[in-house]
Parts: sequence; structure tokens; C-alpha cells
Amino acid sequence: MSTPTTPAAPGSTALDPAIAARLKRTDDGLLPAVAQQYDTGEVLMLGWMDDEALHRTLTTGRCTYWSRSRREYWVKGDTSGHVQKVKSVALDCDGDTLLVRVDQTGAACHTGDRTCFDADVLPLS
Amino acid sequence: MSTPTTPAAPGSTALDPAIAARLKRTDDGLLPAVAQQYDTGEVLMLGWMDDEALHRTLTTGRCTYWSRSRREYWVKGDTSGHVQKVKSVALDCDGDTLLVRVDQTGAACHTGDRTCFDADVLPLS
Repeated sequence: MSTPTTPAAPGSTALDPAIAARLKRTDDGLLPAVAQQYDTGEVLMLGWMDDEALHRTLTTGRCTYWSRSRREYWVKGDTSGHVQKVKSVALDCDGDTLLVRVDQTGAACHTGDRTCFDADVLPLS
Repeated sequence: MSTPTTPAAPGSTALDPAIAARLKRTDDGLLPAVAQQYDTGEVLMLGWMDDEALHRTLTTGRCTYWSRSRREYWVKGDTSGHVQKVKSVALDCDGDTLLVRVDQTGAACHTGDRTCFDADVLPLS
């Protein structure tokens, strides 16, 4: 299979057409996907999904994102071992954001932090 | 003051330049901002912030977003009364996503649901 360099065009994947019809994508064909630890409620990270990444996330049990920087699909944990087992996926009221509840193994952040939001808390004034 | 129709250009606002320098914005000048109920951990909604909305969020105690559809700043709750009091704001490891912990009054969703992710849970297979 050739490696895609752009997100899949809407309607070109095996994603349920009834779901695909409800998605409101960015100009790049993506939706932001918030990953949350299902039991503690920790917000772990935000990734991006096209229709194909969403389809794989719904059907493989493993969170799959579209990497905007590497321009390829990315199964969370394939390199690091820090996998995300999918517990549930919800689409928001506007159809433009996903909430994926997962069971995160180890650190969600590539820095080794548990979440991507641990290191840089901004000052309130 | 005239009403802006586009997000503020980076560097044009009163946002702390040390923070502004760490932001990686979309082509539209925005960052996704995940709003989370600070005590229960509920993911309430996802909005968008430009530098000015982030500055207002950090300094007014009330969550302020940039509305992509209405093309204006939007203080959550100004119309509905469903305000978000800001408890903390964190920037993620890549500088491209915000996590805002808030105390949400009433429903976060315009549909009346507590969160924007309550109504459309997608089937796993």
C-alpha cells in the first residue's frame, strides 16, 4: 500500500457514510481529537483525525491519528509502546471535534510527561 | 472600538510576548482550546483562541474564544449565562493546543447538554 501524503478525501474511506456525513472538517480534511483517560478524566493530548484515522480508531481498538508534521497515519504507541486503547468515541454537537476516551499506557506525551499539558501552565493575572 | 472580522495578528495584542513566542497557530492564527471542568474532569467543549482571546482569558477570569462562524470574540456565557470561570490555562508540549480548566455554570453546550460530547457517541466495532 502506498503511503498517503495527504489526509483521505471525505467519502473515500471505509468510514460509515452516516458518520462521515456528520463531520465538519477543517480545510485540510481533519478534526481535532481530544484524548482523555477514561477513568481519571485526565486530558492527555490533542491529535488530528481524517475520516480514515477515525475509521481505524473505531474499528481497531487503538487510537490512530493523522500526523500533520510527518504527513502520515500514526498509531499512538507503535513506536513508544505508550498505546491508547479506545474506550469510547464521541462527536461534538457541531460535528467538528472528537472526544476519544482511552486507557493510556504510560506517558501520553513524547517528553515522558503523563499528559501534554503538564509542563507549561500559563500565569493568570 | 471597531469589531474585528479576523483573529488578531500575532504580536499585535497585549498578550505577554514570552507566551506569544511559544504559540504555534493554525494558518488562521488560532489554537484549539479544550475546556475541562476543573473538579470533575469533564471535557466540556472545544473552542478556538487567537492571541487576544488568550490574553483576555488569562487576565479577565472568564473564558473568551474566537468564534470562527461569527468571526468575533465570544465571552462564554455572556448570552446564555453559562459562564466559564477560569481556574488554570496550560499550553501543550508543541505549543499548539490550550487546556483551560474552568468552573462551568450550567450547560456548556448550546443544546442544553452539560457537555458538547454527550449526544453523539459513535459505535465501536
